[in-house]
Amino acid sequence: MDAIAAKFGHSFTYDEALIGHVAIEATGSPLPDESLEKMLHSDAVLFGAVGHPKYDNDPSARVRPEQGLLKMRKELGLYANLRPIKLFDELLGASSIKPEILKGADILFFRELTGDIYFGEKGRKNNGDTAYDVAEYSRYEVERIARKAFDAARTRRKKVCSVDKANVIETSRLWREVVQKVAKEYPDVEVEHQFVDATAMLLIKDPRRFDVVVTANLFGDILTDEASQIAGSMGMLASASIGDGTGVYEPIHGSAHDITGKGVANPLASILSAALLLDISFGMKAESEAVIAAVDGVLKAGFRTRDIADATTPTAKVLGTEAMGAEVLKLI
Amino acid sequence: MDAIAAKFGHSFTYDEALIGHVAIEATGSPLPDESLEKMLHSDAVLFGAVGHPKYDNDPSARVRPEQGLLKMRKELGLYANLRPIKLFDELLGASSIKPEILKGADILFFRELTGDIYFGEKGRKNNGDTAYDVAEYSRYEVERIARKAFDAARTRRKKVCSVDKANVIETSRLWREVVQKVAKEYPDVEVEHQFVDATAMLLIKDPRRFDVVVTANLFGDILTDEASQIAGSMGMLASASIGDGTGVYEPIHGSAHDITGKGVANPLASILSAALLLDISFGMKAESEAVIAAVDGVLKAGFRTRDIADATTPTAKVLGTEAMGAEVLKLI
Ligand SMILES: CC(C)[C@H](C(=O)O)[C@@H](O)C(=O)O
Ligand SMILES: CC(C)[C@H](C(=O)O)[C@@H](O)C(=O)O
Repeated sequence: MDAIAAKFGHSFTYDEALIGHVAIEATGSPLPDESLEKMLHSDAVLFGAVGHPKYDNDPSARVRPEQGLLKMRKELGLYANLRPIKLFDELLGASSIKPEILKGADILFFRELTGDIYFGEKGRKNNGDTAYDVAEYSRYEVERIARKAFDAARTRRKKVCSVDKANVIETSRLWREVVQKVAKEYPDVEVEHQFVDATAMLLIKDPRRFDVVVTANLFGDILTDEASQIAGSMGMLASASIGDGTGVYEPIHGSAHDITGKGVANPLASILSAALLLDISFGMKAESEAVIAAVDGVLKAGFRTRDIADATTPTAKVLGTEAMGAEVLKLI
Repeated sequence: MDAIAAKFGHSFTYDEALIGHVAIEATGSPLPDESLEKMLHSDAVLFGAVGHPKYDNDPSARVRPEQGLLKMRKELGLYANLRPIKLFDELLGASSIKPEILKGADILFFRELTGDIYFGEKGRKNNGDTAYDVAEYSRYEVERIARKAFDAARTRRKKVCSVDKANVIETSRLWREVVQKVAKEYPDVEVEHQFVDATAMLLIKDPRRFDVVVTANLFGDILTDEASQIAGSMGMLASASIGDGTGVYEPIHGSAHDITGKGVANPLASILSAALLLDISFGMKAESEAVIAAVDGVLKAGFRTRDIADATTPTAKVLGTEAMGAEVLKLI
C-alpha cells in the first residue's frame, strides 16, 4: 500500500485492530467493540486470517476465533464474498490438475456471506445428546447477491451458474426460485442451475465451463476452497467481502498454524487482497493493476514460494515470505 | 448376476420395483408401499438412479423423485453409505488430475445417510418469504457410523479422517466430540479431523493422504461426487448403503437425462455395484472379485465408454452401454 501511495501520489492512513485468537488472549472477546468501531470508521479493512488449533480440537470451547470473523461479517453487512479464481499462466504446472484442463479457466465466485446455517439458531437438546443447526434464507438475501452476480456477469462472459441442493433442501428451493426470477431481468445473461454435488465434480472435470458462480454461504465455503486448486494454491487467492458499507479484503487461506514462524507462507494472496481493495473500495483501477502486474512480473521472473514451486523451480528461486514481498515491492 | 450364478452354481431370484419419476408417473408416489414391501422382503437391493429435470426446474413441485430415495434410505435404516474411490490403473490418463498425483490413491468414504439437514424439519415462514432447514445429529447416529469407519480402517491402512465444520456448526461439534470418543477404542488407528472446506481442497491436492474418510450426509454427498474425479469418472463409482437390514447397492451417478436413450452411459458403476452386493450382502467374496476382475480385464483390453475414453483411445474401442456390458459378460 505504501509503495502504491508513493508511486501514485496518494497517502493512506492505517489503523490496526485485533480479532480472533489474539483478541481473545488480549481482551477475552474474539471481536472487541474497539476493533469493530475502528472497522466501521475505516474506508476499507485489510484482513489477516483467524483460527487456532487450540479451539478446533476442543469441541466444547465456548469462545472461538471464528466468532469474531462471523460477527464482523454480520455487523458490517458483508453479504457478498467475491472470490476470483484465475490462474497466473506461469503457475500452470503448479496445480495437481492437468494444464490442458486449466488453461484459460477464469471463475468469479459470489458466495453469500451473512446467512445460511452459519447464522441460524444452533444448540443442543435431549440433555446435550442431540445437536441442531438451522439454515435459513429470506428472499431479499438471495435477491441482492443474485443481482450482484448477474451484474458482474454482464462485464464478463455473460454466464451465471447458480449452485444449490434444491432436490433436497427447502432453502435451496427458495434460492432457485429467486434466482430464476432475478434472471428474467437479465435476458442477455445465460443462467444455469447446478446441484452442489455435481458442481464439486464439474469444477475439477471442466473448470472452463464456469464464468460467474453464485451460491449460498456453506456451499461457497466448500466450493471456493476446492477451486483454489484451479489457481495452483490457496496461497494465491484473494477475496473481497462487500455489502452496503466498509468492504473487507482477505486471502481465502486460513491462519496455517502448521507453518507459523517458519517464514514460508505465500504472501501473494494478501498482496492481491490489497489489489482488490484498491479497485473495489477506492476505485483506484490503475493502482490495483499495478499490484497485479507486479505479482505477475515476480512469477514471470521465476520466483516462487514453497507452495507454488514445482520440480522445475531452481532452489535459488524458492523464496520465503519476506523475500517474496520484497520482490513484489521492487516491481511496484 | 446371472453370469455369476451360472459360473458359481448359484441361483438368484429377482423382483422388480418402481421408485422415483417412473413411480410417480405410475402411482403418484415416489416410493409406493408395494416397492418398499418388496425391498424389505429381499436380501439386497440393486438400485438404478433417481432424478428428473422436470422437478429440478420447478422449485414448487410438491412430489419429487428424490423423496422416494430418501424415504427408502430412512425406512431401510441405511445409515452407512460406503463409497470406495479407487482408480483402475488403466484409467490413470482419463482423469483431469495429473497421473503422478493420483497413482495409488485408494479412499473409502463412509457417508452418514439417514440424518443431517436431509431429514430435519424444513419449511417456509413469513408468508413463504423465508425458507428453513434444520440439521440434526444425535450421539448414537455419529457413534455407529464412526465405529463402522474405524472397523474398516483396521482392515486397510489404519487411518481415519473425520470431516466436519466444527468451527462454525453445532452438529459438527457433536460429531467431533463423538468421533474423538470412539477413536479411544481404536488406539491402533490414526485419526485426524479436517474441516470440510480444507478437505475439498486436499482431495485434489493430495488424494493419497486419505485412507478412510467419515463424514455427515451433506458433506459426504459433496465430497464423494468431487472424489469421483480421482477415479476418472462418475461412471466408475459404485456404492453400498447398509444398516441393520437389507442393503442397497447403487452407482453414485444420477439418472443423467442429458444422455437418455443415446446408449452411451457407462454401465461399469452399476456392474461394480453388483460386485459390492455380492461381497457385502451375500458374503460371496470370490464371486465379487470375479466381477471386478472382468471389469479390469475389459479396461486392460482397451475398451472404454465415452466418458472414460481419452485422446489415445482408438475409435473402434469406444463402446456403447450394451457393448460394454457384453464385454464384461464375456470375461465372467
Ligand atoms: C474460518 C471459517 C469460519 C471461514 C468460513 O467458513 O467462512 C473460512 O473458512 C472462510 O472461508 O472464510
Ligand atoms: C439424488 C440425491 C437426493 C442424492 C443425495 O443427495 O443423497 C444423490 O446426490 C446421492 O448422492 O445419492
